Amino acid sequence: MGEDTPIARIPRGFRDIPAGEVLMRDAMIATIKRVYQSYGFTPLETPHVEYLDILGKYLPESDQPDQGVFAFRDDSENWVALRYDLTAPLARYVAENEKTIPFPYRRYQVGPVFRVESPGPGRFREFYQFDFDTVGAESVAADAEACMILADTFEALGIARDKYVVCANNRKVLNGVLEVAGIRSTGMTPENKEEKLGKAIAVSSQPTLNEVALETGYTAMTVLRAIDKLDRLGIDGVTELLGKGRKDESGEFTKGADLNESQIAQIQAFLSIPAGGYKAVCDAMAELVKDSAEGIEGVGELRLIGNLLEAGGYGDGRVIFDPTIVRGLAYYTGPVVEARLTFEVVDEDNKPRQFGSVAGGGRYDTLVERFLQRKVPATGASIGVDRLLAALSHLKLLESAQLQPPVLITTMDKNYLKEYQEMTVELRRVGIPAEMYMGGGGIRRQVKYADQRNIPVAVICGGDEFSKGEVSVKDLLLGRELAAGIKDRDAWRVDRPQQMTVPRAELLATVKKMLGKE
Amino acid sequence: MGEDTPIARIPRGFRDIPAGEVLMRDAMIATIKRVYQSYGFTPLETPHVEYLDILGKYLPESDQPDQGVFAFRDDSENWVALRYDLTAPLARYVAENEKTIPFPYRRYQVGPVFRVESPGPGRFREFYQFDFDTVGAESVAADAEACMILADTFEALGIARDKYVVCANNRKVLNGVLEVAGIRSTGMTPENKEEKLGKAIAVSSQPTLNEVALETGYTAMTVLRAIDKLDRLGIDGVTELLGKGRKDESGEFTKGADLNESQIAQIQAFLSIPAGGYKAVCDAMAELVKDSAEGIEGVGELRLIGNLLEAGGYGDGRVIFDPTIVRGLAYYTGPVVEARLTFEVVDEDNKPRQFGSVAGGGRYDTLVERFLQRKVPATGASIGVDRLLAALSHLKLLESAQLQPPVLITTMDKNYLKEYQEMTVELRRVGIPAEMYMGGGGIRRQVKYADQRNIPVAVICGGDEFSKGEVSVKDLLLGRELAAGIKDRDAWRVDRPQQMTVPRAELLATVKKMLGKE
Repeated sequence: MGEDTPIARIPRGFRDIPAGEVLMRDAMIATIKRVYQSYGFTPLETPHVEYLDILGKYLPESDQPDQGVFAFRDDSENWVALRYDLTAPLARYVAENEKTIPFPYRRYQVGPVFRVESPGPGRFREFYQFDFDTVGAESVAADAEACMILADTFEALGIARDKYVVCANNRKVLNGVLEVAGIRSTGMTPENKEEKLGKAIAVSSQPTLNEVALETGYTAMTVLRAIDKLDRLGIDGVTELLGKGRKDESGEFTKGADLNESQIAQIQAFLSIPAGGYKAVCDAMAELVKDSAEGIEGVGELRLIGNLLEAGGYGDGRVIFDPTIVRGLAYYTGPVVEARLTFEVVDEDNKPRQFGSVAGGGRYDTLVERFLQRKVPATGASIGVDRLLAALSHLKLLESAQLQPPVLITTMDKNYLKEYQEMTVELRRVGIPAEMYMGGGGIRRQVKYADQRNIPVAVICGGDEFSKGEVSVKDLLLGRELAAGIKDRDAWRVDRPQQMTVPRAELLATVKKMLGKE
Repeated sequence: MGEDTPIARIPRGFRDIPAGEVLMRDAMIATIKRVYQSYGFTPLETPHVEYLDILGKYLPESDQPDQGVFAFRDDSENWVALRYDLTAPLARYVAENEKTIPFPYRRYQVGPVFRVESPGPGRFREFYQFDFDTVGAESVAADAEACMILADTFEALGIARDKYVVCANNRKVLNGVLEVAGIRSTGMTPENKEEKLGKAIAVSSQPTLNEVALETGYTAMTVLRAIDKLDRLGIDGVTELLGKGRKDESGEFTKGADLNESQIAQIQAFLSIPAGGYKAVCDAMAELVKDSAEGIEGVGELRLIGNLLEAGGYGDGRVIFDPTIVRGLAYYTGPVVEARLTFEVVDEDNKPRQFGSVAGGGRYDTLVERFLQRKVPATGASIGVDRLLAALSHLKLLESAQLQPPVLITTMDKNYLKEYQEMTVELRRVGIPAEMYMGGGGIRRQVKYADQRNIPVAVICGGDEFSKGEVSVKDLLLGRELAAGIKDRDAWRVDRPQQMTVPRAELLATVKKMLGKE
């Protein structure tokens, strides 16, 4: 092949989404949309591209050294980037339009986001998120609502109550624990913390939050990152990361938060509060943070969230309070929420594991402040569309979203194209999807095509049939069942013939009958 | 503001899409999807990013010198680009998966595409297309089908028959006219034509097709480009472009195709064939191209398309044959199609003009060949989603797609959040969208919010009402009508009170009544 012959290949880390998945995703998104709308959220669509400095301050949750954004210069030499989430664009939109939009501003947005991640099983550089957010709401009633919305979404999608749980926690309580244990963000005032984070991220090879945390001496963030790994590493691994550090299976060493034993013990005490109803969890938390104003405030917020969930009828175990929930994003400032699917699946190494997190969010009271230099409280959550879709597929929900394949009007003899066209339109006009075979090849090729597409019925007509004013209609579904040994051949032949030749006028009735539409 | 305070701004040439438009677009896309599906097309979703060499061969239709693609290097230093249409990615997909997909491969895809264009009124760098294509179908039955699909789409969207027309033509007939007039692609064999186009496009500042055409001496393309401007420049302007060239209003000169008078006359004769039914148009075309084998073949294809449209019931003037239709894309090889809306609108200069083209397509038998080095015939069309949506909005179709705003449960007294939450969930549970006010401010602020969002009903409760076991329900819609003087105040007060205080148990019934849901 010459130098002018490119090799057809998809970019590394990207994927094409096949028909079945697109259809299921469309159906899932439609259902989620109805839930979000029932709460009064309205849609917004921001571009797929933003100026880099709009996105630049905060990185998504990450432990990958090569994680970052797709950035490039536009034709005016300005740095732009593909959005890596839907929250930073929302903050830009709200700040840019603050004079005209009603507050609280409640919007949903669904679409792809882009991250430069190391591709891996089920991990792609383009994936869908479906977010809802309330901007301009100080009350944690909005955080309670986020829990309700996630629960309602699972219900609307048909996920049984024993298969999901929504978990809530509060960063303020975590901060309270750190404060009481004497763990502070050394060397970082709130102001220069932002500055340092911002500068660190402005370099082209983006550091992880962990690296930023270490470099800036922001121990608290290192602690949060360690807790966030509880699921994966267990309490022993987290304890190592709270202390000197941890060597993983590959021998790679991750520097720890360097806490002393007493500090580690206090964090362990907090993490060992059993997740559950808000009353017991808040009582236990309150005991641990009683010397921290921020911690007490955080517990109070969780109590109010618990109250409102109860009032809304969600106090039945669908939402639990879990001290181990952190959510990775650096910008969370208050309540955080994570929705998990609790049924087991088998992972790549053939080990059973819980399906896990499919949605998360929290309060980020400083994200819009970046632009406007005044507090604009905000909270919301994001559903990982591809993960949730994989779960629904595993649970065999949404299968009804698949299309009914069309009836195939085969085109054996190109002299009769007009007649084939007439038949095709005749079926389509009564609502039966119908496709006239457009390719080359004879009847064997055409029936093979029908089998590949799982087409249920084929209309087959040659000169013979046309001269007699007849058409042949073939039940391909039955043919496939017989071939697969599903049906007893003789029993079925009696009342369900595999192929029928009928007068042309009976085409429609015959097709309908074969499709079971009569 | 410090250096750490970015200015909230959307990238140049991009836009945020507000709620009303997103909702209408969703509804429109759902309708189009049903039409495409009824023909047996199934969805595919390719990434928003492709390797640049996959896109690099052909540029979209263009007269803008700064038109091109957003391209950048990925983390492996490979050139990637945001897709500029959905056809090039389809060609890549088909070539990459030719062993496993059924042929003919019939897919639809909807989504944004990206072009570096000079921003202007209604012209953005990100816009939606909704394509259907059949790959592996040599028969022009697939081209006839494309006309039917476009007509069916307009019908399904409720556009009246006197407001749209689908126009068909054939590049082969145009080539025949050029051949008969002695206009050839001098200095370009089919092979080095591809090579030159490919190379020309590989430079970073992309030339227009016009520039490529001139540079390579490809006169035929210059002629096609001139014809394509008939709508905008009229026959005189086109004649100038067929000759020495044309100076536009700004004084800028565009070099012409440099044809002689006889050649220009032959093209004018072709262009003056009146658009209409296939029989008359094909007869007139046949007379002009009778000395060109390609031309005769092209006319024959148009006749077959006309036949099939007639057989399908589309021979009633909804599809016409129009010699002036070119479609700009360099890669079309046979029949081309353009769908136009024929009603008048007022343009930016306050002049009436036809709404114009909202969809187009054609046969591109060489696009997949690039990758596979063998012929893979293909045809399809693309709907310009944003343009069509603007038309539907102008025609006041799709207005029913707007959301019913929620009922607002105001939160006057934060001591009663639990009670407000109960009311909110009570309404939502019976299918009434309901929103608990999440922001700050008193009742005036909250009612103002309801007005901004066009909320029809507000529930208002303070300590007084709660102590009496009552709730107040306010008809904001009526309030707005009264304020606007739409309703006679006294007449309405009798049977439709603006605000009612009722026992708590009657909340649901009262809200339903005010919403007219009873």
